[in-house]
Amino acid sequence: MKQLALLLTALLATNLTYAQSELTLKTRTYRQQHERQLLDEFMGLLALPNVVYDTVGIQKTADYVAAMLKRRGIEPQRLDGKTNGVPPAIYGEVIVPGATKTVVFYAHYDGQPVNPNQWADGLKPFEPTLYSASLDAGGQAIQLPKAGTSIDPNWRIYGRSTSDDKAGVFAILAAYEAMVKLNIKPTANLKFFFEGEEEAGSTHLNEILERHKDKLKSDLWIICDGPVHQTGRKQVLFGVRGDVNLELKVFASKRPLHSGHYGNWAPNPAMMLARLLTSMKDDDGNVLIKGFYDDVTPLTDLEKQALAKIPPVDEQLKKELGFTVAEGGGKPLADLLMRPSLNINGFASANVGKLAANVIPTSATAALDLRLVLGNDAKRQVQKVIDHVVAQGYYVTQQESITDDERAKYPRIARIVAKSGYNAQRTRMDLPIAQTVVKAVQSTVSGDIVLQPSLGGSLPLYLFDQILKTPTITVPIANHDNNQHAENENLRLQNLWDGLETYVALMRL
Amino acid sequence: MKQLALLLTALLATNLTYAQSELTLKTRTYRQQHERQLLDEFMGLLALPNVVYDTVGIQKTADYVAAMLKRRGIEPQRLDGKTNGVPPAIYGEVIVPGATKTVVFYAHYDGQPVNPNQWADGLKPFEPTLYSASLDAGGQAIQLPKAGTSIDPNWRIYGRSTSDDKAGVFAILAAYEAMVKLNIKPTANLKFFFEGEEEAGSTHLNEILERHKDKLKSDLWIICDGPVHQTGRKQVLFGVRGDVNLELKVFASKRPLHSGHYGNWAPNPAMMLARLLTSMKDDDGNVLIKGFYDDVTPLTDLEKQALAKIPPVDEQLKKELGFTVAEGGGKPLADLLMRPSLNINGFASANVGKLAANVIPTSATAALDLRLVLGNDAKRQVQKVIDHVVAQGYYVTQQESITDDERAKYPRIARIVAKSGYNAQRTRMDLPIAQTVVKAVQSTVSGDIVLQPSLGGSLPLYLFDQILKTPTITVPIANHDNNQHAENENLRLQNLWDGLETYVALMRL
Repeated sequence: MKQLALLLTALLATNLTYAQSELTLKTRTYRQQHERQLLDEFMGLLALPNVVYDTVGIQKTADYVAAMLKRRGIEPQRLDGKTNGVPPAIYGEVIVPGATKTVVFYAHYDGQPVNPNQWADGLKPFEPTLYSASLDAGGQAIQLPKAGTSIDPNWRIYGRSTSDDKAGVFAILAAYEAMVKLNIKPTANLKFFFEGEEEAGSTHLNEILERHKDKLKSDLWIICDGPVHQTGRKQVLFGVRGDVNLELKVFASKRPLHSGHYGNWAPNPAMMLARLLTSMKDDDGNVLIKGFYDDVTPLTDLEKQALAKIPPVDEQLKKELGFTVAEGGGKPLADLLMRPSLNINGFASANVGKLAANVIPTSATAALDLRLVLGNDAKRQVQKVIDHVVAQGYYVTQQESITDDERAKYPRIARIVAKSGYNAQRTRMDLPIAQTVVKAVQSTVSGDIVLQPSLGGSLPLYLFDQILKTPTITVPIANHDNNQHAENENLRLQNLWDGLETYVALMRL
Repeated sequence: MKQLALLLTALLATNLTYAQSELTLKTRTYRQQHERQLLDEFMGLLALPNVVYDTVGIQKTADYVAAMLKRRGIEPQRLDGKTNGVPPAIYGEVIVPGATKTVVFYAHYDGQPVNPNQWADGLKPFEPTLYSASLDAGGQAIQLPKAGTSIDPNWRIYGRSTSDDKAGVFAILAAYEAMVKLNIKPTANLKFFFEGEEEAGSTHLNEILERHKDKLKSDLWIICDGPVHQTGRKQVLFGVRGDVNLELKVFASKRPLHSGHYGNWAPNPAMMLARLLTSMKDDDGNVLIKGFYDDVTPLTDLEKQALAKIPPVDEQLKKELGFTVAEGGGKPLADLLMRPSLNINGFASANVGKLAANVIPTSATAALDLRLVLGNDAKRQVQKVIDHVVAQGYYVTQQESITDDERAKYPRIARIVAKSGYNAQRTRMDLPIAQTVVKAVQSTVSGDIVLQPSLGGSLPLYLFDQILKTPTITVPIANHDNNQHAENENLRLQNLWDGLETYVALMRL
């Protein structure tokens, strides 16, 4: 154990050049010969609406994923928990005679909500379209070229879930198919688990894991979700932040008021909400809510070392994103992601633009998300926010509508509704199986890969810990500038091809 | 002159009971006999989409108004300014032999934008519908009863511009028709002027007034727009506040970012805008922008007296509107409306509710309006806001898109675009013609009417002052709880009937 830790320390300290494995080169040749076929199957998957709340679309997408397993000779199984009418997980397994390890490969087939009006002209979330480059770089729509014609790996596919996370589903299944075609045997039993409710906070994943505990027995879950490092390097992530979404709504007049006849007298809910939100963070982005940082579990020495070795990307990113001053008072992005956070995801009160009218709105709503780190608890963190709002003089309710009695009694009224959310998870970097994963990913590239104690983003990995007592490691493949969760989501083709090589290597642990 | 002022002072000081005039009682009987006919014509007007930016709807509405004049034997004229393609004013005149006065009656036929999604279930902005009471009071949709059946005056019509300001157009023309039918001669030359661009800030009204100066010569403009007093009493308004609309947009990252991977590092435009807005007003609603109250012309003694006599409505209103603490630190609404104001009309950044996603938005936008009082200048007031934003460390531009150079150069970037707006106007309360108007309106009711130095709302009345050198007095008719400018706009029928009596009296000045 100590030796492994030393090995990891060495890996973290040096910048080496590595030889790419023969397996990787073989996979590459295979892919070059089958690009068009691969894309056709992927495009079919992308064309299916998969917004997590769209039950019809989700079912069709689940069926397509099941059919993908079937085409590869794997019997697809639908895994449900005890609640009916929620997206199932799609499962399949390949038992390898003599294998001593079992690995579960995880990705999710559901996607974030879409507001088609916010997508660029010509883009529709579920009509996947090839572009010659990113939109920012002036990319233009192009036709999928004829089979046999070369495909530029810098092309991008635009559409919902191109990156998050149909790319994960596809890379895993394409990797398995490549191994079959190349006649390479996996070295471990492979299990495939594709979730359908991740973007709604994996509300019923616990039920599925509980019910199918035995079936899902394994030594490791490998999670394919999220982006590679902003430098373009592959990365291995040992944990994820937790996440919980809140809606904070402030109420004022029962009916909209003319801003001339009542403005500067009637309470303005947009201003009230603005004041509430600014009371929550200082100018540097530090959260001012009492006890917000109190529960945080400190980083281990290995984690600190890993963090220190992460290539700095802040300046490159700021240039790319078009701003000069970040929150955090100059601390690096990688360090800030190790803290719990509070973000405004959206804000709405009455109308702006062409629909703007001279009114005092009746209410104002903010969508917030709290990212959680090891030590935080989702419910406890939400309670801190509620306590803060109460401390600003608000009566806080969870009810949809406010009664006249409440209106008469309380000078300031807010509604806070939290979704269930989930806690953070971190796998120890010195586990032997973690080492094996690091070596496998490293074997696919000649430069250093990046090792991160935790992803900034969130996945419900604590459940695997808690219910299955099994470690998880995340190996993402998407480009970092993929507009994940927003309009104009996209995937750079080279990232898909690199992901294929990564996942073939991970099936030979 | 001094005597008149004394008379007015007396009027302001006492609470008398008045006899309603014979003219009013005759008008009432006439109306009771023609309610269904009156409503049919009004409903036809209401069914025409008239959003000020909808050129097709505006033209159809203008044609309908012209046809209403024609039906009354008045030759309609279309008045344009020098700019083409903007809503025309519809004009007509009745020259009375021997008349020594000329009065222009003004209303506007255009309406505020609508967001049909925000209207209550079953309501469509341009399908005017009768309700048995207000929605808040549990009103239900009812069919227009057969001709001859009695119509409850507490019923309401829901639809865009029912109050603002098709009610004005209709009351004026219905009053004239009533006089014709009752064979009562007007005592002054009557001119009718119906504007079509008021809700866009009357951008081209100056051109129309300039070009048709001679035609529009008169002793007084009477403006039919806005609500009666919240006590339900009729009111005469001697002025209006000015108004100018701003859009304030704050820019952050060029593309939406995943709130897990970038939250608490990437600048959050919703938080930035919240901070900017809260820096503009204190908790009591006082505007903190430097010099905001500097230009204000003090009230005259008569105006102060009038203000002091306005029946207090604050507590009644707060109860009705469902809040307990107003802005203004306890000062009465009527007093606060004599100050310039800054209101947030709307706020938007990314999405909330079902469309909310875990992102850091790219921008945040607030719609603001500045109400202006005598002494303020629209441009100067806007400049104070811009200077304030600059003082908070922002680079302020008016350009639609932000260049990469600007993004690289300035840590905080805002766009402020102001519409043209217009200044306030106040007619001296001691003018003889003002007295005549007060007496006419008072002759229609037995209780006190309310005299207000200025409406809280805005109309471009300064133009009549500036271009035509003619005083204006506003005599509104709508119910105060009409949801003007917002969803579920409505008109209480009794207000229309009262308005008819008021305007008949005003045609006998």
